[in-house]
Amino acid sequence: MSPIRLALVGLGKIARDQHLPAIAATEGIELVAVASRNATLDGVAHFATLADLLASGEAIDAVALCTPPQGRHELAALALKAGKHVLLEKPPGATVSELGPLIAAAQATGRTLFATWHSRFAPAVEPARAFLAARDIRSVAIEWKEDVRVWHPGQEWIWEPGGLGVFDPAINALSILTRILPRPVFLTGANLAFPTNRAAPVAAELDMADTAGVPIRAELDFLQTGPQTWDIRVETDAGDLTLSSGGAKLFHDGRPLIDERDAEYAGIYRHFVELIAGGASDVDVTPLALVADAFLLGRRSIVAPFEY
Amino acid sequence: MSPIRLALVGLGKIARDQHLPAIAATEGIELVAVASRNATLDGVAHFATLADLLASGEAIDAVALCTPPQGRHELAALALKAGKHVLLEKPPGATVSELGPLIAAAQATGRTLFATWHSRFAPAVEPARAFLAARDIRSVAIEWKEDVRVWHPGQEWIWEPGGLGVFDPAINALSILTRILPRPVFLTGANLAFPTNRAAPVAAELDMADTAGVPIRAELDFLQTGPQTWDIRVETDAGDLTLSSGGAKLFHDGRPLIDERDAEYAGIYRHFVELIAGGASDVDVTPLALVADAFLLGRRSIVAPFEY
Repeated sequence: MSPIRLALVGLGKIARDQHLPAIAATEGIELVAVASRNATLDGVAHFATLADLLASGEAIDAVALCTPPQGRHELAALALKAGKHVLLEKPPGATVSELGPLIAAAQATGRTLFATWHSRFAPAVEPARAFLAARDIRSVAIEWKEDVRVWHPGQEWIWEPGGLGVFDPAINALSILTRILPRPVFLTGANLAFPTNRAAPVAAELDMADTAGVPIRAELDFLQTGPQTWDIRVETDAGDLTLSSGGAKLFHDGRPLIDERDAEYAGIYRHFVELIAGGASDVDVTPLALVADAFLLGRRSIVAPFEY
Repeated sequence: MSPIRLALVGLGKIARDQHLPAIAATEGIELVAVASRNATLDGVAHFATLADLLASGEAIDAVALCTPPQGRHELAALALKAGKHVLLEKPPGATVSELGPLIAAAQATGRTLFATWHSRFAPAVEPARAFLAARDIRSVAIEWKEDVRVWHPGQEWIWEPGGLGVFDPAINALSILTRILPRPVFLTGANLAFPTNRAAPVAAELDMADTAGVPIRAELDFLQTGPQTWDIRVETDAGDLTLSSGGAKLFHDGRPLIDERDAEYAGIYRHFVELIAGGASDVDVTPLALVADAFLLGRRSIVAPFEY
């Protein structure tokens, strides 16, 4: 089978840091075009917008949308309408309700729609899921604390409505949580701290539960300096399981089980190629639905202004 | 078939104004118990809580939950676990994610779960749906403006997280909108005004679209004095269709088609009896998902404090 001809839409930090090397390393898919208003890539056809690309007649099979979430729905709808397979960076959109029509459009056109959650491809995730499937789970504690100035330097969109603020990284934790736990999770309460000058929260505390009543607590902070924390600790009848470094490491009662280099995006593109080959889609809205619920049910507080 | 023996949980304003007369007027269902901390009803068994009722051995087949939305999930889960059919007042819960497990529990126990949207039983709704199915729709304008002091006197829960503020009435408009339009609706933007001293919005503007790109605009206000407005105007290729008075009246280009007395709750209980007889459930989370999206994507502003 000839490789899938992919166009990348958006050529910002995540596209350069993660997508480009992952695409280059994946069998069965090749980058043939880029749509970006400001950036170009040597040796690859360039267009200012996805609409220009589609109008050009450039032969592509699929698009990967790496632009901010606020405009993702319009681009995805356009690409599906043009008969292209679509890969969505996380979060898959600015709202939950915009995803239903995209799922329907993918079904109607027989194209693949893949709403990626890159953290689910971290090496500790599937082993943790297997471990927890057979355990009595007592509690879960998530600590997701990073420095926005280091990881999202100058990114203004993240503070706009739909940009999610601290939930942009924390939705990764929720994507792991909802993958490794054996039962559905729902939100029971939240506190959200909004900077006076921003439309998205800079910190949050979430209380959740699963359907067996297991308490799940998450502490999220976007202003963590010094050591950065991306940990999920699960207390079970067979000891504590800890996923740390965003799922790169796994510990059982402090004993390391897994400590691997990050290969999340390679996993994403491998899965995208498989989905297209199988004529399937993969869209799980659960992590974004939990974030929407946190905004819905969360008690808001106003905190100090944030500037980069 | 002997009538369904129903217990009412919560005996506040909505239960007394609407549920009691509708139950009394509906064939096939009878009120046999009430669970309420403060209120009792002559001639009907009384319990302080649903848990007390279930523990008492009082013979009931179904419960109707008329308590505020914040505790609804726990009560519904308890009732389903005890093998009872469950009717949920709107909104069906404090979050969207809590409803999945309830749907699963109803399926697992073979019991009926009915998430009611009373405005969908207003007389103009089904005729409007039939009219619009065959029309080219140009735009939709919702105006939902009422005086919270008149319609929710002293209700503090409505201003708490999960109480929804102005979305408590406006979700009725969204429940009609998503019933009468032929295509799915999603949110594209929102502005939410929060009183300085309250956790829920007192006013909002919503921008939505359907999958054909029809623009849908909603203006919501909880401080409307004088005439109250609960109108949905749909501009079509065959003239303007207006549902007013919350769906009690229907106009085509200003000409009245329908003007009926409210019988929404009678419709609800008739449907509940049918669902139980057919072994079916009816849970549409769409209106609540749109509200969650409005909180997720909405730009917040802070306005004057609200006191009753």
